[in-house]
Amino acid sequence: VGCGGRGAALITLTTDFGYRDAFVGIMKGVIAQRAPGTPVVDLSHGIPPQDTLAGALVLRSAAPYFPHGAVHVAVVDPGVGSSRAAVCLVTERALWLGPDNGVLSLAVPAEDMRAAFAVTNEALFLSPRSRTFHGRDVFAPVAAALATGTPPQALGASLGDVIRLDLPAPTPIAAGVAGQVIYIDHFGNLVTNLPATAANITRLTTSNGQTARLVGTYAEGAPGELIAVVNGWDLIEIAARDGSAAERLGARVGDRVQTEN
Amino acid sequence: VGCGGRGAALITLTTDFGYRDAFVGIMKGVIAQRAPGTPVVDLSHGIPPQDTLAGALVLRSAAPYFPHGAVHVAVVDPGVGSSRAAVCLVTERALWLGPDNGVLSLAVPAEDMRAAFAVTNEALFLSPRSRTFHGRDVFAPVAAALATGTPPQALGASLGDVIRLDLPAPTPIAAGVAGQVIYIDHFGNLVTNLPATAANITRLTTSNGQTARLVGTYAEGAPGELIAVVNGWDLIEIAARDGSAAERLGARVGDRVQTEN
Amino acid sequence: VGCGGRGAALITLTTDFGYRDAFVGIMKGVIAQRAPGTPVVDLSHGIPPQDTLAGALVLRSAAPYFPHGAVHVAVVDPGVGSSRAAVCLVTERALWLGPDNGVLSLAVPAEDMRAAFAVTNEALFLSPRSRTFHGRDVFAPVAAALATGTPPQALGASLGDVIRLDLPAPTPIAAGVAGQVIYIDHFGNLVTNLPATAANITRLTTSNGQTARLVGTYAEGAPGELIAVVNGWDLIEIAARDGSAAERLGARVGDRVQTEN
Repeated sequence: VGCGGRGAALITLTTDFGYRDAFVGIMKGVIAQRAPGTPVVDLSHGIPPQDTLAGALVLRSAAPYFPHGAVHVAVVDPGVGSSRAAVCLVTERALWLGPDNGVLSLAVPAEDMRAAFAVTNEALFLSPRSRTFHGRDVFAPVAAALATGTPPQALGASLGDVIRLDLPAPTPIAAGVAGQVIYIDHFGNLVTNLPATAANITRLTTSNGQTARLVGTYAEGAPGELIAVVNGWDLIEIAARDGSAAERLGARVGDRVQTEN
Repeated sequence: VGCGGRGAALITLTTDFGYRDAFVGIMKGVIAQRAPGTPVVDLSHGIPPQDTLAGALVLRSAAPYFPHGAVHVAVVDPGVGSSRAAVCLVTERALWLGPDNGVLSLAVPAEDMRAAFAVTNEALFLSPRSRTFHGRDVFAPVAAALATGTPPQALGASLGDVIRLDLPAPTPIAAGVAGQVIYIDHFGNLVTNLPATAANITRLTTSNGQTARLVGTYAEGAPGELIAVVNGWDLIEIAARDGSAAERLGARVGDRVQTEN
Repeated sequence: VGCGGRGAALITLTTDFGYRDAFVGIMKGVIAQRAPGTPVVDLSHGIPPQDTLAGALVLRSAAPYFPHGAVHVAVVDPGVGSSRAAVCLVTERALWLGPDNGVLSLAVPAEDMRAAFAVTNEALFLSPRSRTFHGRDVFAPVAAALATGTPPQALGASLGDVIRLDLPAPTPIAAGVAGQVIYIDHFGNLVTNLPATAANITRLTTSNGQTARLVGTYAEGAPGELIAVVNGWDLIEIAARDGSAAERLGARVGDRVQTEN
């Protein structure tokens, strides 16, 4: 990178592989062999096992901050080894690689997708290919190929569309709007599907009846207070000042929240 | 780096962002956009949430081992979005960036600080700037600016001093010296505030009355024995041979230890 | 790397240092000072504390995927500071650095080892050297020396052999073959010592009497079914479809498994 010539693209990795095993390190080894010098940035390897929605949300939140030309790889793949396809999506800014199970779909809405290709060209894979570790045998070598200039159309047939995850939409209610928890972060903050623009929110009630006051920043909460803020994703999230809202409320993804009169 | 010219500085990151979300990856995306090719090294993202003292100790332990010219960024920031300032400190060896809450202060004692600047120049920030994620919107782009040659005085007004954390000092007692646990590491070792030079330590007593014998290395302990050693920070720490002293003693930061007659 | 000249080798790190402290970051600081620009790839820092067998298995699984010339460093070191030696092994593809406690021995079987050297040349170490943190004071600077061209014979005396870990071998039984769990991964999959070639496996029984059906991929299991697959290490592993087999069975390393009639 920066040493002249075309330079190598940057690759990002988002997986549910965790931090105990060498799964991620192995993918980096394959990339180092096939695309030497390409920077690899970890978005998260702490996606809850097989939680494609969490992976999709994390990828959507992070990708816009990366340089043009990045190759974003997401491996959250309950169907590894089954007939699910691997896909490569093309947008104006980036290339996207992952299983066709929706994990790419929140970062790449249909209107941004310029092309999609099946990933079936076995000449680009590791050989022999295992049936259980496509991160190593398929996604890492194909990411390396893309980062070193292989065009996406060399990966396989063009696809009309891909599987998409639907984020639940907020719904109007008498008291304003109802939504739900869609993600819980490391701090125990509860990210909801209510956008910053959900009008007139001043207080939210959680599914177990507790109330969170909308404030501008975490620091405006009183010590221990349950608060709601507009977070870095431009969504309303519920936080406990100096603590974990998830622990305090015993909250889970899918829990209902609503505005209060 | 090493490709000629001035080269990019190295950036280190110390945060309480954890490993589940993409917070850290997003900061690296911003840095990759604004300071391409700059190496970024993670010191820790496992600082307990909002524990500025732990962040300050980790940063102090690590920074001396990095090359001259490094930019050390610490984001442990309970006051994000409040009126707390962001600061940039200058020492002979490095630049330091973080919230003005003491997280930089153990690594940069007053006598080493050559200058301090408020970080207020919004032209260097991401725009629009959120009120909850300054790691992405303020600290990453400013670190990138510093790494690519922006002088610290371009960040904002010069400051006289910054907020400092005080490490508790050991106190003399009849039996020798008393101190306390200031940090607990991944192995469950209890780092105390007693320096290697705390004279004549041969045994320590913990707050629940157990005794640890001072030995030269972990391996000198008998299996399961509670021992005290001089650790890599040049402080006395209490360890359980082949186990976790923290678990064994139910120990917490702040627990008292003292020499025994 | 790639910027002309010999280029720096890639260094991999495998440790039990965890992700809370700055131990790993400090090693990277030392490497950045002494071998600037050398890529460092983390294999795992989540090896269970002092579990040399787990470290050895992780290293063995990952190293073949890295480029020729890599320097693989493994620091899982219950005997740090004792009389155990540090060693450097030489194979056709790579250099290997770690304590002489077997952590390197599964990745470097005797027949692949071309040479072994004690690591005793203090001129290459950090000075002063602590008795508790050889990752920083010994292994990082020696890895940097190797990566920048210091020949392994400069590290110390040639050694005849090194300490080796023995993986338990499967044993024939009336019903086929018996083995045991040797590693449990992040997903709770139970890796056994039964090779993919262990003939005629169609079902396995675990030590608490449950049965796992051999299938080709995780996805072939019914929801919640206990299955056995050939994993990415070419070993039989037991998995729970969409869950953790380790949690379901309360399994531990060493638990017995056997084929069923």
